[in-house]
Amino acid sequence: MTQRWAVLLAYIGTRFCGWQKQSGSAADGDKSVQEIVETVLGQITQARTLVTASGRTDAEVHARGQVIHFETSGRTWEPHQLLNGMNALMPLDIRALQIQAVTQDFHAQRSATKKQYSFYFLQGPSADPLLQRYSWWIKRPLDVKAMHNAVQALIGEHDFIAFQASGATTKTSVRTILEAEVTREVPNFPYDAEGLFGMVRVRLVGTGFLKQMVRGIAGTLLEIGDGRRPPEDLRKVLESKDRSLVGATAPGRGLWLEKVWYPGLDWTQKIL
Amino acid sequence: MTQRWAVLLAYIGTRFCGWQKQSGSAADGDKSVQEIVETVLGQITQARTLVTASGRTDAEVHARGQVIHFETSGRTWEPHQLLNGMNALMPLDIRALQIQAVTQDFHAQRSATKKQYSFYFLQGPSADPLLQRYSWWIKRPLDVKAMHNAVQALIGEHDFIAFQASGATTKTSVRTILEAEVTREVPNFPYDAEGLFGMVRVRLVGTGFLKQMVRGIAGTLLEIGDGRRPPEDLRKVLESKDRSLVGATAPGRGLWLEKVWYPGLDWTQKIL
Repeated sequence: MTQRWAVLLAYIGTRFCGWQKQSGSAADGDKSVQEIVETVLGQITQARTLVTASGRTDAEVHARGQVIHFETSGRTWEPHQLLNGMNALMPLDIRALQIQAVTQDFHAQRSATKKQYSFYFLQGPSADPLLQRYSWWIKRPLDVKAMHNAVQALIGEHDFIAFQASGATTKTSVRTILEAEVTREVPNFPYDAEGLFGMVRVRLVGTGFLKQMVRGIAGTLLEIGDGRRPPEDLRKVLESKDRSLVGATAPGRGLWLEKVWYPGLDWTQKIL
Repeated sequence: MTQRWAVLLAYIGTRFCGWQKQSGSAADGDKSVQEIVETVLGQITQARTLVTASGRTDAEVHARGQVIHFETSGRTWEPHQLLNGMNALMPLDIRALQIQAVTQDFHAQRSATKKQYSFYFLQGPSADPLLQRYSWWIKRPLDVKAMHNAVQALIGEHDFIAFQASGATTKTSVRTILEAEVTREVPNFPYDAEGLFGMVRVRLVGTGFLKQMVRGIAGTLLEIGDGRRPPEDLRKVLESKDRSLVGATAPGRGLWLEKVWYPGLDWTQKIL
């Protein structure tokens, strides 16, 4: 009996080369999250198991709401057997948070209707020893209002080719951004008795994202936030379709894949 | 000219043997935070520099508000020179957040009037890949009200010898707890779109704490929270003065030194 499964996956990207398997030899460097998940599912099911994700994440990028699908065949599995088996065998920086049986037409990439990414800047007198691993520490104060105003230019359907990394192979660079905001957040963990730290969060919801698109947007927003560029520059870069006008690509460690939406898939029906 | 300095220090305890220098050889294992700070201050000042902290923290225990003092002599230092030098030379998991010049009678340990420690339990379907490094994941639901009621028994001056680790060398095991509460907290970073995770925080403010006291209290509170013991057991353990009645010592990675109070020292007067 063939069963298809969707799993909600969280991982800390620090020591991975990204989601996607690399074609080169193992000596090429860090492992991919995909490799580890496929190896573990192979151990559990005793069969070669291919895993498809909602999309790739770059090296060092974190995921709190990555969604994957895969198939099992032969014996019948209970969802908790697969979930517990994955968490028992995967390293602690990759966790399977939830699992659901899905129909054969579910596809983690093609069925996704929208995705949320956030990029986090850390503001404080020094790089907080915990938060700096998961954000980009910028000591100089950022003008959140200017950044928020700038990012509104992205809403709607646009050709985002200016923000696409070189080497991308997608058919079209037209994407639709549905929500875009820049907010100041105060992390409540770790507890900050002196109120020294804050975060600036760039939150984007869209039907799809190009390679390194959010990190290019974040890099340009930084230069708007610290006054090196006027807020209208983000619109100008977008309209220019010229990669050379984009700010420096922000580091992967500040980027989080937070949520992927699918018709009919609701993770709050907790199985565990 | 001799100058005395107080520094607000944050560190992630994961890879350290604790605050205190170990007397054994370097081959004995992980480094202490104290060793690293003293080495770095020696490099900056070109003179052997001894550092005193508000108190020791155990292996793996984190600090967001540790306070240290040390002296410099010979040349005159500006505070930002020392702070920037420390952050340039220390590893990223130790950060100097603030610095202040203090008078010769300031002593990081003896001048402290009270301290706040929190122990964090993580609740969720699996160990979150980020938060599990800084908390103790307990899958079964915890009764926060029962834990909060239990912890009230600690308030006031008591002999906490039941909660003291063996091998402690303090003169007296009498300490005063000023505040004690157990609360449910929802961490806002990393963003949890599905609302799967929560934390249970055990917060204690006291004039002083014994070796592994908070971790013994947390271990006992866990057994109250999951129903293995009635809430009144914490008071009974305290009154028994019998170490064998304490729950298993909770792991260091869930414990945070959050704040130390000193008369006249206010870190919100940011120098950076």
